Amino acid sequence: MAPSHYVGLLALVAGCLLPSGVLALWPIPSTLETGMAALKVSPAFYFDVQVKGAPVDLYEAVAQAQYYLANDKLGRLVVGRGANDTTALASAKTLSKLTLSLTSWATAEPIAAEAVKPLGTRSEEYALTIPADGSAATLMANSTLGLYRGLTTFNQLFYYYGGVTYTLLAPIAITDTPAYPFRGLALDTARNYYPVSDIVRTLDAMSWVKINTFHWHITDSQSFPLEVAQYPGLAINGAYSPQEVYTASDVQYIVQYAAARGIDVMMEIDTPGHTSIIAATYPDYVACFDETPWAHYANEPPAGQLRFALPEVVNFTTSLLTGVAKNLPSSYFSTGGDELNTNCYANDYPTQLQLNSTGMTLNGALDTFTQVTHAALIAEGKTPVVWEEMVLNWNLTLANETIVMVWISSADAAAVAARGFRIIHAPSNYFYLDCGAGGWVGGYPAGNSWCDPFKTWSEAYTFNPLANLTQAQYGLVLGGEQLLWSEQSAPQNLDPIVWPRAASSAEIFWSGKQPTGAPLNVTEALPRLHDVRYRMVQRGLKPIPLQPHWCALRPDACDLTA
Amino acid sequence: MAPSHYVGLLALVAGCLLPSGVLALWPIPSTLETGMAALKVSPAFYFDVQVKGAPVDLYEAVAQAQYYLANDKLGRLVVGRGANDTTALASAKTLSKLTLSLTSWATAEPIAAEAVKPLGTRSEEYALTIPADGSAATLMANSTLGLYRGLTTFNQLFYYYGGVTYTLLAPIAITDTPAYPFRGLALDTARNYYPVSDIVRTLDAMSWVKINTFHWHITDSQSFPLEVAQYPGLAINGAYSPQEVYTASDVQYIVQYAAARGIDVMMEIDTPGHTSIIAATYPDYVACFDETPWAHYANEPPAGQLRFALPEVVNFTTSLLTGVAKNLPSSYFSTGGDELNTNCYANDYPTQLQLNSTGMTLNGALDTFTQVTHAALIAEGKTPVVWEEMVLNWNLTLANETIVMVWISSADAAAVAARGFRIIHAPSNYFYLDCGAGGWVGGYPAGNSWCDPFKTWSEAYTFNPLANLTQAQYGLVLGGEQLLWSEQSAPQNLDPIVWPRAASSAEIFWSGKQPTGAPLNVTEALPRLHDVRYRMVQRGLKPIPLQPHWCALRPDACDLTA
Repeated sequence: MAPSHYVGLLALVAGCLLPSGVLALWPIPSTLETGMAALKVSPAFYFDVQVKGAPVDLYEAVAQAQYYLANDKLGRLVVGRGANDTTALASAKTLSKLTLSLTSWATAEPIAAEAVKPLGTRSEEYALTIPADGSAATLMANSTLGLYRGLTTFNQLFYYYGGVTYTLLAPIAITDTPAYPFRGLALDTARNYYPVSDIVRTLDAMSWVKINTFHWHITDSQSFPLEVAQYPGLAINGAYSPQEVYTASDVQYIVQYAAARGIDVMMEIDTPGHTSIIAATYPDYVACFDETPWAHYANEPPAGQLRFALPEVVNFTTSLLTGVAKNLPSSYFSTGGDELNTNCYANDYPTQLQLNSTGMTLNGALDTFTQVTHAALIAEGKTPVVWEEMVLNWNLTLANETIVMVWISSADAAAVAARGFRIIHAPSNYFYLDCGAGGWVGGYPAGNSWCDPFKTWSEAYTFNPLANLTQAQYGLVLGGEQLLWSEQSAPQNLDPIVWPRAASSAEIFWSGKQPTGAPLNVTEALPRLHDVRYRMVQRGLKPIPLQPHWCALRPDACDLTA
Repeated sequence: MAPSHYVGLLALVAGCLLPSGVLALWPIPSTLETGMAALKVSPAFYFDVQVKGAPVDLYEAVAQAQYYLANDKLGRLVVGRGANDTTALASAKTLSKLTLSLTSWATAEPIAAEAVKPLGTRSEEYALTIPADGSAATLMANSTLGLYRGLTTFNQLFYYYGGVTYTLLAPIAITDTPAYPFRGLALDTARNYYPVSDIVRTLDAMSWVKINTFHWHITDSQSFPLEVAQYPGLAINGAYSPQEVYTASDVQYIVQYAAARGIDVMMEIDTPGHTSIIAATYPDYVACFDETPWAHYANEPPAGQLRFALPEVVNFTTSLLTGVAKNLPSSYFSTGGDELNTNCYANDYPTQLQLNSTGMTLNGALDTFTQVTHAALIAEGKTPVVWEEMVLNWNLTLANETIVMVWISSADAAAVAARGFRIIHAPSNYFYLDCGAGGWVGGYPAGNSWCDPFKTWSEAYTFNPLANLTQAQYGLVLGGEQLLWSEQSAPQNLDPIVWPRAASSAEIFWSGKQPTGAPLNVTEALPRLHDVRYRMVQRGLKPIPLQPHWCALRPDACDLTA
């Protein structure tokens, strides 16, 4: 429907032709044609679902779209907020319905089922047309997931002034498909806990910019807030409090809520590092637990890592990971693997005894641990996902299908690609939402954030997914994600630290950068991102303002060169 | 009541003797003696106001204290949150009342009247004793304002577990008085607007840490949200919308709400720079309005500054400033004076014509403008407050009583002191809450915050009010303030960007640094600041977490050296 060679055209459209401050789609679609006619939404407007066997979650999505259409009430971001549009609206036609349908060869599955299919097998593309003459608008897709994406776009087209919901750019024709299959947001719920309500609010916001993966870093050294049926002690002893636990039903609710919004939940139980709190339940499984000085044994307090050389720890971890993963619909599960500290094992008697008695090296033991745990996940139908150190710092035998998250530096993507693994871009130097807030360890007032400076939306937006890769390696890039590590975050600042910044990668990986396209342009993007932010405010989120309101109402007036 | 030579003792107490994580007063009082007995608050506990002619706002303050005592329900920040205290509580006595009284020579005025007296004439000191045997606690002060400060301290003493509100440190004896008379928080409500509800919530939080001045930077080049009776057009044309205006009654409400909480409102109408939006109403009064490139004419878009050389502009500004100031109870009014851009006037025909016809220099015209406007404020009983450039960058004749806010760098305090002016410390390199969020001007993705890095609470906490001053100049330091400039802030991130960080200066200027005292210590302070933050959460504010919750429950365990 949207051939990829249109993407070059997109860049042209995005850079040069869009009327600033009028049409504010995000992410910008693959192809877009607009007119100059005003078109009002009828008070009797309805969504006409012409989908045979339409699933319940499609009807729910339609009801949500109807709600946003009626309640966004977003004034255009121009001086007067639409007061000058009344003349154009006086003679405007009225749009009475949007007809949703699937292509003839498609069958209607639930959005939630489509959203969790393996990457590369989901269809997110759609075609949306809105005539200027008041005749029915149409939305067509190959899947209910595509229809969902199209509804999201449809909601971004309309503004409100004086009781009228309208667009000024009819007729509109859009065909759209993502450039990359993986567009994520990662949240650490272990350093500080987030109630379910914060997570579902975040999932809503993710869906508004077509992010399709929630990378849930659910546990870490500081707390283990996940209820695990086989190992109930982990949460009983490892959660911050009984109220700060994600129960099995919480997880099921979140996964279902996400899937109905086109979002796959990729959970991570980080191992063998970042596991100190497991010692509260299984002290024999954890080396260097709470050893001091912590900085010798870990990047963060408290110290403590799984004794991965011990067979009983391999068995425990395998059972833990598969026990959790098998209840999740996603094809992906992250086993972590970052920041493993070797000092922790140097004087650890059980580890050294095991290594000495078997003649294994620490690397060899880690290889066994990884192979066993990963094989078990693969047997459950899960693709293992790991942090880059598993490839670059250790000599391990990983399954070819393993996906590698590049985080230390964007420059490391080339080395991972050279090893032939598929890549998720999660570079701290572009995408870490927590950077720049200063050091948080105690007794160190001069301490800056290790990944200073703050990553502005615009800096993140300049990320090039294909940098330093050969053309033959381009296919290894699955996409990328922005990430919030929660040492200094909690529900109190979740919205403002994430939004609207996390929309940057959402557009990078939906709309480009394709090899043949021009780079996305921060100057063109800013007015549209203001629009994203103000619409989020209308929907009850708490995103930061990117500029003074004066600037938001005057596209480009606050550019450095203006 | 609290002789200043006790302050040396305070530093000793704060640094060495306080039981970590148990007593979490902020700011730490001048003198403090504690025991080791548990003491429960009776369900029938009441405040016994033994103040002849007690004003209504004292009763309101007591009702608020009663509310916090009943509803804070803050668990101690230790593992178990107080579960281990039940043994001690089993044999604890019960506290039934706190008796409030004034010293015999004092007369009861409203808190709101005491709070707006000139600096140096307010009495904020108090003495609080809480016996361990269940007999009445007593709070005594020279003024209702002192009683208010004592109530604030009283509320910080108690924790909650299992239905019981208690302290573990009875008996408690506190005498307390601030080291510096001015402890402020500045908020810019012009770059982005804050509803009244956000301001009053902020005033509440300020009162919890004994901040006594709200520096309200109410207008700027981007918007003029202040209703001025004589010049209604300023808000009609200059506010972002009719809903984003502080009406006269809004201002009155905020001023009264603040004063009843011991907070003086020092308003600022920044002149002659930072006034572009006045051109929307009085185009003849503004030079270089919206000229491009804006960066040539102003530090921020839009360009535009008052034509201060014109007699009609001097008259207008004088009338504007005095018209606003005279309706405010504060003795202080800031006329601004920062970042005046001379390029703006170089080709401004009306300005140059006036200078040529009178033979005045630009500096001379500014001197006239400043003298006339300040003299009128002084005639209204107001002390003018200015930014440092008025002293350091221009050759102006300022009244000796003028107060100078040092903002560009903390190092500039010495030069201001050398000129003999009183100082408010507002240094960007310690106290700007907006720093570190990256550049916000458009089209400049590599742009960092001009005042990088982010100012952590601990960096701010290392500020030394007396650095580089001679002993003879110490008396010039009135205090200081942390500041939020709102280019990237709005109601959505107000709480998390301000709190708990703004508590840092609140303690610096209440509790030290006195010449004879040891420096305040970030390691000692951190557990107490966690406490401030968690108590704020209990009261509905949204402050950021300073560390993982794991660290907050384990004082010092996350120090770099632990």
